[in-house]
Amino acid sequence: MIKSDLGGIFDPKSVAVVGVSGKGPGPQFGGAHFLDALLSCGFKGNIYPVNPKGGKVLGLKVYPSLMDISEPVDYVVCCIAAPQVPQLVKDCAAKGVKAVQIYTGGFSENGTEEGKRLEREIAALASQNGIRVIGPNCVGIYCPRTGLAFLPDSPNDTGPVAIISQSGGNSFHLVREGAKRGIRFSKVISYGNACDVNESDLLELLANDEDTKVIGAYVEGVKDGRRFVRVLGEVAKAKPVIVLKGGIGEAGARAVASHTGALVGAEEVWDGLLRQLGVIRAYSIEELVDLAVTFSCLPTVSGKRVGIVGGGGGSSVLSTDDCTSAGLTVPRFPVAIQDKLKGYMEKGNTGVILSNPVDLSDQGWGVFDDCIRTILDYDGIDLVILQCAAGPIPSSEVLKSLGALFVDSIIKIRQESTKPVVIVVHSLISDVSWWVAAETERRCGEVGIPFYHSLSNAAKAIARFFDYHERRSQRNL
Amino acid sequence: MIKSDLGGIFDPKSVAVVGVSGKGPGPQFGGAHFLDALLSCGFKGNIYPVNPKGGKVLGLKVYPSLMDISEPVDYVVCCIAAPQVPQLVKDCAAKGVKAVQIYTGGFSENGTEEGKRLEREIAALASQNGIRVIGPNCVGIYCPRTGLAFLPDSPNDTGPVAIISQSGGNSFHLVREGAKRGIRFSKVISYGNACDVNESDLLELLANDEDTKVIGAYVEGVKDGRRFVRVLGEVAKAKPVIVLKGGIGEAGARAVASHTGALVGAEEVWDGLLRQLGVIRAYSIEELVDLAVTFSCLPTVSGKRVGIVGGGGGSSVLSTDDCTSAGLTVPRFPVAIQDKLKGYMEKGNTGVILSNPVDLSDQGWGVFDDCIRTILDYDGIDLVILQCAAGPIPSSEVLKSLGALFVDSIIKIRQESTKPVVIVVHSLISDVSWWVAAETERRCGEVGIPFYHSLSNAAKAIARFFDYHERRSQRNL
Repeated sequence: MIKSDLGGIFDPKSVAVVGVSGKGPGPQFGGAHFLDALLSCGFKGNIYPVNPKGGKVLGLKVYPSLMDISEPVDYVVCCIAAPQVPQLVKDCAAKGVKAVQIYTGGFSENGTEEGKRLEREIAALASQNGIRVIGPNCVGIYCPRTGLAFLPDSPNDTGPVAIISQSGGNSFHLVREGAKRGIRFSKVISYGNACDVNESDLLELLANDEDTKVIGAYVEGVKDGRRFVRVLGEVAKAKPVIVLKGGIGEAGARAVASHTGALVGAEEVWDGLLRQLGVIRAYSIEELVDLAVTFSCLPTVSGKRVGIVGGGGGSSVLSTDDCTSAGLTVPRFPVAIQDKLKGYMEKGNTGVILSNPVDLSDQGWGVFDDCIRTILDYDGIDLVILQCAAGPIPSSEVLKSLGALFVDSIIKIRQESTKPVVIVVHSLISDVSWWVAAETERRCGEVGIPFYHSLSNAAKAIARFFDYHERRSQRNL
Repeated sequence: MIKSDLGGIFDPKSVAVVGVSGKGPGPQFGGAHFLDALLSCGFKGNIYPVNPKGGKVLGLKVYPSLMDISEPVDYVVCCIAAPQVPQLVKDCAAKGVKAVQIYTGGFSENGTEEGKRLEREIAALASQNGIRVIGPNCVGIYCPRTGLAFLPDSPNDTGPVAIISQSGGNSFHLVREGAKRGIRFSKVISYGNACDVNESDLLELLANDEDTKVIGAYVEGVKDGRRFVRVLGEVAKAKPVIVLKGGIGEAGARAVASHTGALVGAEEVWDGLLRQLGVIRAYSIEELVDLAVTFSCLPTVSGKRVGIVGGGGGSSVLSTDDCTSAGLTVPRFPVAIQDKLKGYMEKGNTGVILSNPVDLSDQGWGVFDDCIRTILDYDGIDLVILQCAAGPIPSSEVLKSLGALFVDSIIKIRQESTKPVVIVVHSLISDVSWWVAAETERRCGEVGIPFYHSLSNAAKAIARFFDYHERRSQRNL
């Protein structure tokens, strides 16, 4: 049984942000951004900005020091310079703080003896005083249930995906891109140099976290290889774990060393290991998002037989190729289904493909509805991919209203069917098509319809999802 | 020597669009869209809409029939139903028309004997009367030099890229996405079922076309395999040819058969053939665009040594991995260069990576300028990739003005350097970031700075470009 005592760090009753500029969030990321994020994400406890100059920021009183706060402080976000951090940890001990998240960089990752020494010092101080440290050199925790946050624009509602990331910037990317694609999060933890709380601690915690159904991880290197392998194996048995490993070859290792001071390990070792443990490996941050969308939104499905609807002739051909290359099948519809589809088409349009894919170029939007329902009803298909490519551009207003109509229709279909429908929108060439696509994406996200920006990426992610569940059922997991 | 008598089809003095609705361009693509496209693209000759009802459309007089036009007509765009097309071709013969572009579908691609017979009939009629046919089942020609066009929003200025595409929808996609990315075109030809003018004719023509420096092709199947291989080999010796082959496996072959009635050929044959002929193969329409951007904008460069600037620590690691995986190298900067870069950084920011990549998170935008110039001056680097990921979001207005500042700076740097700079902008999560990126893309496109939406795609395309030129220099081509 996996155990952890880390759970408390997500539920502080109060947070102090130490090192806020008096001017509010500026162009450089810092304390005021954390403050802004906590306020925007609706953090439920008390928030105390700290700066020796005092004053007010974002409507909150600024305390000259942590020790000047009379109420108890559970959690500290540290944004002051590295040499001042040991004293802050001592103050945290005196104040009874439970956890410190250290945004500050300039520790082991800068490769100097002084940086390494400082990092050891704060780790030792924290350990002696029972304080957990997240970081240093990280953006810390986003937990919408309690309102801990590092971005002002992250969703306030929760969801099944947890992310752990050695990189703060990649956490930003994953939360923002993920949120735009409809992913909602249980917990996101950027853990940086991991001088105390590390990847294995977090994976253990998430394995037992009832709010978390899918785990995504950006990992550069690990602190304790043996423990990591054991923990990762146990977690991967419990729920899908998608890992993006950063740092390939000599140049990648050098970048990682400067970034989080971690040792990367050999590529071959990682590849074999992840495969053996049943971990899903992503090879780019875009693929990690695609896989997280797929694993969190798609219900378990019975097979790989895909029906494709929408797009013109050329995109019908290419979408079939994309599915085939990814390992999905695109079976031919029986004549009875093709005849039924033909009945929906507007008269005089003889150039339409009906055998799967169904090419709906030059058809009115109303035809989509009937076609998708017919294909979903056909028992030779397990899943429908609906693709929308830019056709001839109608006026902006027409495009907007058609977009809304289309989404309404898809949401209704999805709610009435037991089989999944996924959406691919490609070729966003104008402000209006961007707007329509973003709105479609947002509304699909709300109801858990997976949305992708390229058919080949969609096909690859869906195929990985099927393979994962197929392997598990073979192993009787 | 390759010869062709096709050149004239791009220079008609007058165009008749036969089969225009009286209402102008509607939501279904048709004759009025071609009319709109010709007007928008500034076609220099006379334009004659034809519809038995007469009247006016888009400010032009509508003629009841082709024979009612008293002036000569060089080129006809045919948008009337398939059974009426043979009579139109006869009228064209009587009228002295030189070329007919047939948008109409419902010929050999619909698999019926009647469709095949009709296609043979129009091919025979055209041949007997010295008329060239483009199509049927295609959107025809876009040639900005003369103003022939099939989209109202395609650029009016010309450029070095030619596209031939068996699919009309893929032509739309390639022109629009390409234009957005800064590609400008010499000639784009969607040739559909190719009952007369086929892929080999067009490749021969483009091989000798002085306006064309790079050729992209979307091909599903070919009419005459032997000739195609011979022509493709000759063209590929003359200029870079990028081929996207549609129709993989049984399902892909079926989609192609319904789309353009072509026979696809075995995947292994195609793969070996394209490799042997020195053709660059794209595996998705997105990759075809990336390659066309790269081959048309990048100057020939001396090596694969890349300097990477921008992004945070995590994206520095992943961008290094992307370059390494693609076959580029990311050499470590000497200490002297690192010290110079360090001098530009804002004080107190100790967490920055300087050894290549150069992580500029939390640095002001002004730093970019000095860093890029320093790296371009260093003789251990052949090319600079500048990546911009979404950081903490400043207000919309700030982002917009920063975006403009940034583009001004990059354009100036590019103009002053002999080495190329390419730009990667990823993570577009808001309307404003979309706007800034689109504007950056547009301005980079204007001056021929390659712009990509993902670092891994950029790295792959650039590596293909280097490999192509390396292979050619080894063969002394």
